Amino acid sequence: MRVVGVDPGLTRLGFGVVDGVGGRLQSGSSGTIVTPPGAGDAERLLTLYRRLSEVFAEHRPDAIAVERVFFNLNAKTAVPVMRASGVALLAAAVSGAPVFEYTPLEVKQAVAGVGSAAKKQVRFMVERLLRLPAPLETEDAADALAVAICHINSHKIRALAEAR
Amino acid sequence: MRVVGVDPGLTRLGFGVVDGVGGRLQSGSSGTIVTPPGAGDAERLLTLYRRLSEVFAEHRPDAIAVERVFFNLNAKTAVPVMRASGVALLAAAVSGAPVFEYTPLEVKQAVAGVGSAAKKQVRFMVERLLRLPAPLETEDAADALAVAICHINSHKIRALAEAR
Repeated sequence: MRVVGVDPGLTRLGFGVVDGVGGRLQSGSSGTIVTPPGAGDAERLLTLYRRLSEVFAEHRPDAIAVERVFFNLNAKTAVPVMRASGVALLAAAVSGAPVFEYTPLEVKQAVAGVGSAAKKQVRFMVERLLRLPAPLETEDAADALAVAICHINSHKIRALAEAR
Repeated sequence: MRVVGVDPGLTRLGFGVVDGVGGRLQSGSSGTIVTPPGAGDAERLLTLYRRLSEVFAEHRPDAIAVERVFFNLNAKTAVPVMRASGVALLAAAVSGAPVFEYTPLEVKQAVAGVGSAAKKQVRFMVERLLRLPAPLETEDAADALAVAICHINSHKIRALAEAR
């Protein structure tokens, strides 16, 4: 199965494509969508929507996994991230693929084994699990790949549980 | 000028069309988009996006005014509202009309004269200002019309200030 993972953000949004083939993980591509500096929220959301829709159309995932927004008490950062996550979920729904959300805790546990893993550890584990030949360019891409891996692993666990 | 006002929400989203013609306000139509109960966020956002895009395409506004999400500390209500506002801003950007945001305080002041106005007062003033022949069906529609009126009034004030 092919999964596109998304790490939402209004100024930068990470995406990553992961294939789960017979118990092995393979990475297609990953990247970061950067929105125009100085633009208003509406224009930024439009950039995110268009570029993310292109990613989904190009890679035709079987599922899309979005990192669930961590709700914090800082309005300045929370509002734009939540708006971006709304647009990411919309683009996923428009693509027709089933959409799943995972909390940062679930993602860290799935990739690094512990919910308290640091950003660096997540990145290191993603690079190892996918046997990437070169380090990832951005943290957003690493996080997005981690969300995709989290979905494939939880999907595998569910399938095993159902087969019993 | 024609303005469509939007009062965002994930389960219910209000919209209202107001024309400002030579200092007079006229209302076209207004309504509420209700999303499927029991559906996931992605599906609800898709319903909002499609219906709202239809509203913008039908009424071809000169501007779209969206009520700025009031950031509160209740994650359960804040997250869905912010996601809906993100999708409303996106639909507005896709329509090509310029997008404006107003806080609940600005909207209440513009319509009822005081920022502390109650929901009922806002509704009453909207019905009076637009000389509506019958009471509005929903509070969401009343709020959305109020946002549109707020934009027309602030636009008028800006134009007067610039003409001096």
